[in-house]
Amino acid sequence: MRFYDEIRSIGQQIRFDGKFVPEGKYENIVICGMGGSAIAGMVFGDIYKGMPVTVTNDYRIPDYVGENTLFFAVSHSGNTEETLSGLDQAIAKKAKTFIISSGGKISRYPGNRITIPGDFQPRSSIGFMLMPLLRTFNMVDDSVLHETEIAIDRTFGMEDEIAEIASGIVKGKKMPVIYGLPPSPSLAYRWKTQFNENSKILAHSSVLPEMNHNELAAIPHAFQKDRFEFFVSGTPRGRYLDRLRITEEITGCSYHRPPEISSGTVPEIFSSIVYGDLISYHVAEARGIDPRDVSAITSLKESLARL
Amino acid sequence: MRFYDEIRSIGQQIRFDGKFVPEGKYENIVICGMGGSAIAGMVFGDIYKGMPVTVTNDYRIPDYVGENTLFFAVSHSGNTEETLSGLDQAIAKKAKTFIISSGGKISRYPGNRITIPGDFQPRSSIGFMLMPLLRTFNMVDDSVLHETEIAIDRTFGMEDEIAEIASGIVKGKKMPVIYGLPPSPSLAYRWKTQFNENSKILAHSSVLPEMNHNELAAIPHAFQKDRFEFFVSGTPRGRYLDRLRITEEITGCSYHRPPEISSGTVPEIFSSIVYGDLISYHVAEARGIDPRDVSAITSLKESLARL
Repeated sequence: MRFYDEIRSIGQQIRFDGKFVPEGKYENIVICGMGGSAIAGMVFGDIYKGMPVTVTNDYRIPDYVGENTLFFAVSHSGNTEETLSGLDQAIAKKAKTFIISSGGKISRYPGNRITIPGDFQPRSSIGFMLMPLLRTFNMVDDSVLHETEIAIDRTFGMEDEIAEIASGIVKGKKMPVIYGLPPSPSLAYRWKTQFNENSKILAHSSVLPEMNHNELAAIPHAFQKDRFEFFVSGTPRGRYLDRLRITEEITGCSYHRPPEISSGTVPEIFSSIVYGDLISYHVAEARGIDPRDVSAITSLKESLARL
Repeated sequence: MRFYDEIRSIGQQIRFDGKFVPEGKYENIVICGMGGSAIAGMVFGDIYKGMPVTVTNDYRIPDYVGENTLFFAVSHSGNTEETLSGLDQAIAKKAKTFIISSGGKISRYPGNRITIPGDFQPRSSIGFMLMPLLRTFNMVDDSVLHETEIAIDRTFGMEDEIAEIASGIVKGKKMPVIYGLPPSPSLAYRWKTQFNENSKILAHSSVLPEMNHNELAAIPHAFQKDRFEFFVSGTPRGRYLDRLRITEEITGCSYHRPPEISSGTVPEIFSSIVYGDLISYHVAEARGIDPRDVSAITSLKESLARL
């Protein structure tokens, strides 16, 4: 399958109807996942405010995980060693466990389970991994999904200008720097990882207003300032817009911003995902690099398995 | 005061004996702070595992904050608008509130309070802001503090080699890329912000093993790969050491690592803080840039206040 079709599939992914039904009363949520599988948890954690959400991306899970914890293990392959390690611990601590995967070793673990299609790469399956979290906590309905589809379509409609931005990055051999904003600051991190995996370039992400307390001081004096390409991953509004305008004045840099496509939380999130995916895809195309190829990551996993 | 003396003061800061006594039973901890004031919360969150710790660095605090929340507002100046906004909300939601500041408007807010010395810049006061959190949850005792002092002294003893690394960064106009590790992955972020504020250069941080799932794919093909200087902010052990070795092989890059100074959590944390502070300081010196100067940040705050 062409990688472009993987990106395109996001419009169908939001209709994926997996949903857990956690019964009882819980105090906290822990979502364990790595890389592309972690990002669904990060985005969910940005917008769900009913109880503390911690995304763990390491072998160990927090000591407080226990009977009062809803523990989600998200692993696209079902074989991620950090996630399996976390799930082992969560089961031992009697957390209420939920598994999202396309198969793999994790299928042998006890827990409520949603099986997602394994057709696409993990990073292209963000809709499959995010929707069950949103549905479980009743954060989407038909009207939201309809708005989201429209937002996704409109974003694909901007592909020409997106390809032009990508071409500028490649010609200038630039490093993208992306700042996140409400409702989901983690989307800047999503963009960063897509530049890493699809375009094979380094990228940096942070968030507004946090960057106003540190990076702002660096940008005016940075080495090779013209080698950075600055973005925000969403629509700045109110005080965030003030901060962005002043930041642009002080740093003498202008920040690309995706046009405002929707003001709904979920449509805005998916529009930003598509926008970032498309830039990273077009950077890969302009470089003549295969956006699918992540052989370095596979090679590390194989080396680790041999130890 | 010379900025170097601010860095030097960390050895005394760990003896700061502010401590809160939260009585009762709580379900979660929220620490609200920005920039240098946030990092104490992040480091604490890395190592305290008794209940969920969320560090918020934005105007809004999570909806779940309430009577079961221990809410720490950390603002060195006491005037940080995001933190004051968060504290307002926490008070309205009847959270148990604690304030760490050197004075400022936050002094007029109700809550238990620890006043820290205001002699140093916020980023140089990390000991004053971190110790009350560690003491409140009984995470240090005299023997730990003694080990920590030894670790700090030993780290200052490595200043010649640190200055040499800094000189390499300046000569090559390089961008530091720092990866965090247990026990406190957030220290990589601390290093990044110190490069931003002290050296006035952009820097990027992420964590191991998370970077093995995305950035690893980028490094071999990155634009201007030789313009990045790679670090880990702590001592890699066990599986982390395996991952680092394989990462070095695959990327063809070698990673600076601070020598192992101590295996105790708190001594290791402070050793890493000093190591990162010193590199960033020596980069500023080698560039002929004042490490104290953060006029861009001040200027933004003034512009915001005028709106």
